[in-house]
Amino acid sequence: MLSRENYDIVLATSTAAVPAWMAKRYPEVERTDFEGRHHKFGQRHNACPNSPVYQKYAKALASKLAERYGENDHVTCWHINNEYGGICYCENCEKAFRVWLQKKYKTVEALNKAWNLEFWGHTIYDWDEIVPPNLLSEGQPGDRTAFAGISLDYNRFNSDSMLENYKMERDAIREFDPDTPITTNFMEMFKGLDYFKWAKEMDLVSWDCYPAYNAPISYTAMAHDLIRVLKDAPFMLMEQSPSQTNWREYNPLKRPGQMRAQSYLALAHGADTIQFFQLRRSVGASEKFHGAVISHAGTEDTRVFREVKQLGEELEKLGNTTLGTRNETEVGIIFDWDNFWALEYSTGPTIDLKYVDSMHTYYRFFHERNIGVSMIPWDADFGKYKVIVAPVLYMVKEGMKESLEAFVQNGGVLITTYMSGIVNDTDNVYLGGYPGPLREMAGVWVEEIDALPPEWTNEVIFTDGTKAVCGMLCDLMHLEGAESLAEYGRDFYAGMPAVTKNSYGQGTVYYIGTQMAEAGLDRVLAMAMQDAGVTPVLADADGLSVTCRKAEDCSYYFVMNFKDEALDVPPSLVGKEDILTGKIVEMGDQLAKYDVKIILVQ
Amino acid sequence: MLSRENYDIVLATSTAAVPAWMAKRYPEVERTDFEGRHHKFGQRHNACPNSPVYQKYAKALASKLAERYGENDHVTCWHINNEYGGICYCENCEKAFRVWLQKKYKTVEALNKAWNLEFWGHTIYDWDEIVPPNLLSEGQPGDRTAFAGISLDYNRFNSDSMLENYKMERDAIREFDPDTPITTNFMEMFKGLDYFKWAKEMDLVSWDCYPAYNAPISYTAMAHDLIRVLKDAPFMLMEQSPSQTNWREYNPLKRPGQMRAQSYLALAHGADTIQFFQLRRSVGASEKFHGAVISHAGTEDTRVFREVKQLGEELEKLGNTTLGTRNETEVGIIFDWDNFWALEYSTGPTIDLKYVDSMHTYYRFFHERNIGVSMIPWDADFGKYKVIVAPVLYMVKEGMKESLEAFVQNGGVLITTYMSGIVNDTDNVYLGGYPGPLREMAGVWVEEIDALPPEWTNEVIFTDGTKAVCGMLCDLMHLEGAESLAEYGRDFYAGMPAVTKNSYGQGTVYYIGTQMAEAGLDRVLAMAMQDAGVTPVLADADGLSVTCRKAEDCSYYFVMNFKDEALDVPPSLVGKEDILTGKIVEMGDQLAKYDVKIILVQ
Amino acid sequence: MLSRENYDIVLATSTAAVPAWMAKRYPEVERTDFEGRHHKFGQRHNACPNSPVYQKYAKALASKLAERYGENDHVTCWHINNEYGGICYCENCEKAFRVWLQKKYKTVEALNKAWNLEFWGHTIYDWDEIVPPNLLSEGQPGDRTAFAGISLDYNRFNSDSMLENYKMERDAIREFDPDTPITTNFMEMFKGLDYFKWAKEMDLVSWDCYPAYNAPISYTAMAHDLIRVLKDAPFMLMEQSPSQTNWREYNPLKRPGQMRAQSYLALAHGADTIQFFQLRRSVGASEKFHGAVISHAGTEDTRVFREVKQLGEELEKLGNTTLGTRNETEVGIIFDWDNFWALEYSTGPTIDLKYVDSMHTYYRFFHERNIGVSMIPWDADFGKYKVIVAPVLYMVKEGMKESLEAFVQNGGVLITTYMSGIVNDTDNVYLGGYPGPLREMAGVWVEEIDALPPEWTNEVIFTDGTKAVCGMLCDLMHLEGAESLAEYGRDFYAGMPAVTKNSYGQGTVYYIGTQMAEAGLDRVLAMAMQDAGVTPVLADADGLSVTCRKAEDCSYYFVMNFKDEALDVPPSLVGKEDILTGKIVEMGDQLAKYDVKIILVQ
Repeated sequence: MLSRENYDIVLATSTAAVPAWMAKRYPEVERTDFEGRHHKFGQRHNACPNSPVYQKYAKALASKLAERYGENDHVTCWHINNEYGGICYCENCEKAFRVWLQKKYKTVEALNKAWNLEFWGHTIYDWDEIVPPNLLSEGQPGDRTAFAGISLDYNRFNSDSMLENYKMERDAIREFDPDTPITTNFMEMFKGLDYFKWAKEMDLVSWDCYPAYNAPISYTAMAHDLIRVLKDAPFMLMEQSPSQTNWREYNPLKRPGQMRAQSYLALAHGADTIQFFQLRRSVGASEKFHGAVISHAGTEDTRVFREVKQLGEELEKLGNTTLGTRNETEVGIIFDWDNFWALEYSTGPTIDLKYVDSMHTYYRFFHERNIGVSMIPWDADFGKYKVIVAPVLYMVKEGMKESLEAFVQNGGVLITTYMSGIVNDTDNVYLGGYPGPLREMAGVWVEEIDALPPEWTNEVIFTDGTKAVCGMLCDLMHLEGAESLAEYGRDFYAGMPAVTKNSYGQGTVYYIGTQMAEAGLDRVLAMAMQDAGVTPVLADADGLSVTCRKAEDCSYYFVMNFKDEALDVPPSLVGKEDILTGKIVEMGDQLAKYDVKIILVQ
Repeated sequence: MLSRENYDIVLATSTAAVPAWMAKRYPEVERTDFEGRHHKFGQRHNACPNSPVYQKYAKALASKLAERYGENDHVTCWHINNEYGGICYCENCEKAFRVWLQKKYKTVEALNKAWNLEFWGHTIYDWDEIVPPNLLSEGQPGDRTAFAGISLDYNRFNSDSMLENYKMERDAIREFDPDTPITTNFMEMFKGLDYFKWAKEMDLVSWDCYPAYNAPISYTAMAHDLIRVLKDAPFMLMEQSPSQTNWREYNPLKRPGQMRAQSYLALAHGADTIQFFQLRRSVGASEKFHGAVISHAGTEDTRVFREVKQLGEELEKLGNTTLGTRNETEVGIIFDWDNFWALEYSTGPTIDLKYVDSMHTYYRFFHERNIGVSMIPWDADFGKYKVIVAPVLYMVKEGMKESLEAFVQNGGVLITTYMSGIVNDTDNVYLGGYPGPLREMAGVWVEEIDALPPEWTNEVIFTDGTKAVCGMLCDLMHLEGAESLAEYGRDFYAGMPAVTKNSYGQGTVYYIGTQMAEAGLDRVLAMAMQDAGVTPVLADADGLSVTCRKAEDCSYYFVMNFKDEALDVPPSLVGKEDILTGKIVEMGDQLAKYDVKIILVQ
Repeated sequence: MLSRENYDIVLATSTAAVPAWMAKRYPEVERTDFEGRHHKFGQRHNACPNSPVYQKYAKALASKLAERYGENDHVTCWHINNEYGGICYCENCEKAFRVWLQKKYKTVEALNKAWNLEFWGHTIYDWDEIVPPNLLSEGQPGDRTAFAGISLDYNRFNSDSMLENYKMERDAIREFDPDTPITTNFMEMFKGLDYFKWAKEMDLVSWDCYPAYNAPISYTAMAHDLIRVLKDAPFMLMEQSPSQTNWREYNPLKRPGQMRAQSYLALAHGADTIQFFQLRRSVGASEKFHGAVISHAGTEDTRVFREVKQLGEELEKLGNTTLGTRNETEVGIIFDWDNFWALEYSTGPTIDLKYVDSMHTYYRFFHERNIGVSMIPWDADFGKYKVIVAPVLYMVKEGMKESLEAFVQNGGVLITTYMSGIVNDTDNVYLGGYPGPLREMAGVWVEEIDALPPEWTNEVIFTDGTKAVCGMLCDLMHLEGAESLAEYGRDFYAGMPAVTKNSYGQGTVYYIGTQMAEAGLDRVLAMAMQDAGVTPVLADADGLSVTCRKAEDCSYYFVMNFKDEALDVPPSLVGKEDILTGKIVEMGDQLAKYDVKIILVQ
């Protein structure tokens, strides 16, 4: 029917929810949860990834679909499964985990060392002694753990297990359809899966964008800047709501223009398509109050329908203009799932240190200044960037020291922070003094790490006397070649350096030893941007959100206003064409809240 | 012994707690909980209602008791089980649920449609694929669900299962005792059981009244006005504490006079008896600190004993005077367990919408003005009322549209609100535009429902310019014949109607599209009362709580003071007799806090 | 290696963590938790104390170690297991519990009476009907219970079971080593084990001292004063952190001097040794961020290392000077695990009443005034004290009434409070009027107990008109010979006595009927101290913490400053020697924050 109507089709494989008959006939296809409970039929995202039964049927289903639709020209993309996620601790997983470990560590002795199992007498003598780290073993309430190394590897294993599921379906489709792109839909900075590893197996990357009503724009922008980098290519916005969600505690409507602005934000940061979930509000079950293009009223005469229609018309008019154009950035922020897991599994020094929040603390600075950022993997080609930011680079993996040193020696600027350079790939500490492998290039030695409860603060004093409140973590450090930019103002470590700068080869390393209030942090980062010669995408766009997508012979400036007041169009763009309207931008033109312009600069 | 002492006896059947020997011999009599854990012996209210073993022994016990005591004239009432409640998810219940569903839906196809199982690929092909919706399947923490339809039916099934237990004991007693009234004790607006359905099987209704120290009087009054309506007859106050409870977090004493005033509140709203739990404070175990007529001191010389004694003497003096008299009301508020369950199982649009709180929001208005209210079932004879209030009438069941329309067409005033007219009996949405079946008579179409987080508010502006804060939910609606009484003051829907009034036949429908602060709500409700010609039980009783119980040829006005200051007796009652004291009320008489008068008006 | 280096060795038996091979081969060695989940390998403190397999191997391991090292002269102490704790609800425990109960109660009838099992129809007819009180039976979330008596006995049983484990290892060691002292390490006022009962089986008592960053000093001092009394002898500080912990939510560093001051606080209250956990920060696993003498830097050049070194040098210089000296006190506060358990298992009247907090409320008064306190068992020789304080003496065990009466009759001063004298050994109430066995000596009858929610308060008015806020619990009492010191100021019991004093024999009983603000409580306690002629260790040491340890012919005054400002040395100590420095104290000498002096007075 869709083919007859000449639709482009993204065809999903329907393997994200175990059917009732399968759960009944093969109870083992359902998952065992963190509390050790084996589940029955219900909900979705419920299949054990290591269930041979699930694998058999998921593969068969993908295969049958591809056999039937693989040659249908309207099928423009395959969408495997849906929002992979969750974790299983069943007996099949237990066995598969042991095999995964054997492959990785080869010997029991290597495993004992990797996990430091001599601690608390945990030494194992046989692979069969290993059990999954849920609440019945090493797990602790709140997805915490008594043994970070084990839980870290279990997360890697689970991510790999699901990736194997993905590859299995992908390969099944490829047997019948040699070239239609294949993807699955990601979820922001979702903790459960190592998306960098996954992206390598995908033809293109897509994601589902459901910003909370109170999430800052920079948070969503950061997600786009991560998703785009996964394959270093334009991506697909697989899902967004035309208006409200239903599954949050509070689900306000998207205000007029908000959905449109959010859609262009995606384009601005690298999306090449915009899609929606859902077309029609379903008549019943879980998502009947989730936003839809067609409301329960079933009519075109709704605000939401009109807004979607307008966007569709605009995108149709835009045609292929911006497709394939590239977001180029001078700044890379290292985002790494192993760090994500290991940092948050760590017991101490503070429960307030969260990985994604830490990333956003730094990302926000660049976003506010319209400085383009890529959220890059640990093994990226650092040479492409002027500045690498590595907040809470807790785990420094094998080879990373060398690549970061090379980057700085060649003139790069590296910014790193407290809680960096602490552990290796298996969560064992680099002995000899923090920040371990970063110590030489940072030119500092961190003797102690103070963890301040929320009701305590300290302050940093810059060399010119200005001050900023700081807290959460305070490194007590000694200069080993670095220069102090700011020191602590209070407590027994008053006068010790809090922020430092070190020349290393042709480059510079900034080390930020404590979490400062924005004014303090912005000051240090501005200094580093000046050092590196990094500039905004547009210098005269105060308050507006601006990105640039480059084609071979021209650039598209996405100018968006997410502020409550109207803002003037940047003078530097006056006289250029807004390709959304075809009009030439004039001095004095304004963007109201949620207004968007796409300015062509040749 | 009690017979010899000439006591009236309410004899309970002792089936509310599985005995230890039974739990040991037949482990399946214990319940499986929401987390999927099968329980062992302990606590009470612990029997699986679908356990054949439990059924066999419960029936036998009731039967034996009736055989022995059925002809004892001192037994004035049978009390079956105790505070039925809780829910079981064991295998016996699973099987019984399937049978219950088959009986209700006949075919698997009908069931798939009722629960909209095509969503998330949940389609079933065989009854045996159905599993109970606890945390191992569709259940979610906090008694929430991924599939409202399933969980809704499971609640209905569980309520029915326990009702079968009740009926089984009742029938066993009836074999030996043909006429002594049989009841069980209810608990306020208890969520687990459909008391309207239960009441049909009971000879009289009784309940246990344990108001929290900080519960408003109107909350308890609402409970009485529900319990009385269950059988449209005077009820029994089976339990109340002479003073403190012990099982709440904080258990303050009842202040002098408070228990007496609460007892008369029950009488005022329709009780014909007042009883206590417990006679003696038990020496050990769970309730040893629960209030009792006889304290651990074991003496009559206590404040509490004296207060109970005084009440007893008063009631003895009162004799049969008020027995069987009727509370007549012009206002009915629809209370419905299916709505209770379905509304709170709904995923979205806000977690702040609670069923009983919503009822109380409206009930409070009437209680403050001494306007009599009945909390009525969805299938009540609406013709008996001038005003029907239907707050959050989320589920409009089969036939309800017609009966509400008939009510209004015949001159009635209907007041309904946001989140009404949304779904049918099985939680599937009425397509075509909210408020679905109520749309025509309300004369409005609700295009969108905004759900405001607690930190957001809007305001309504009445046509005369007065304003009231509003929030939680804001319907964005269009007039389809109705008149706007107030519109929104802010945000993108400023100027859209927030409260409307529609003439329909001889009557009127008020639609309240958002949750207003009291001043705003009271204004709308006062307007509606004026329209309907509804008046207070007594017009000159400001601050006092007044109800009226009518006999054939006279009326009893219950005048109570729950305020902190003393209040004048209503002038309209001067010259009448207070039957509690036999004195004639004089101008200038006052009621101190907790004072009560029962004034006879002929 | 340690022997060659001439170290003194505290040798642990390594039985605190089940090894992986054992968990695999004998799954029953792991525990079943409060939620009924049987655990797999992981974490530590994980062995079921009633597992024959665990017992067999733990005994064998202790035995083998003793066989090998029992004659090693460097082994100065055996450390059995580690921080015994936790609770198991498995089938082995179930069976052992029944045996324990049979031994204690002899007959099923006695047990039914002890637990008041006729309540809720819980009567048992066979020992096999008893199941452990976890969440599947009598347990309730938050370690609460529906049947206090059962849960109380299960705690006693669990404490005894682990004590049997301890004794088994101890006896195994004794076969090879007849005289080296044997201990295990306690944890403050740890709820799980009856340390008074345990101490009887130990050669010396040791404990692990990890004060939270925001714990008042008096809280830690109270713990020392409990631990010392367990065997009425100097104790061992088995563990403390040289700096931060890692397992709390927030783990700030110990400030310079803080660890030293805490160490001397231990000595001041009766420690004879000071030790640390851990020597080296471990490279990986759970405690890699826990404080250590040697940091991950692996160098001696750290603040923490230097502070530990300084302390070590001081203690070496001190040598045996203070070893074996005694803390003598005139005040005893009764601390009792049965009361701890029973009070907190009680359902009502308020959840705010906590046992250890109640103890600290009273201890604080004495600590602030440098009045020495012993935290004594219920069966202590009361004759050694001038004052016995018995806060919330909820359970009055067999024989206690007599010993307390004898103490007072002989001239002692007893201070007791609300929620005292309520139940007997099995949590059954003493009928006849509160405070039961204490009523005669207190000269009061408590008719009712009001439990105030946090937002309510009352006030007490002393006979001279001064007032103090009070709340939580308010006893409504009648004088039966006692004199009222203060009465309630508000509510319906205004004018009733709130605090009383009664002469009994040669002595006096103070009864405090409500929880007063500090000013009010301090006033009553000061009165009692004057009555009893109790004086501070040092009268002129305002703000300083001072204790005294006595040798045969001299005294050592530990003078410590835990305040933020510097304080003058007490004039009474001028001219005496500070044995830490060898200097004579001069007028005008000050102690800065965390300064310590040990003054020799002959």
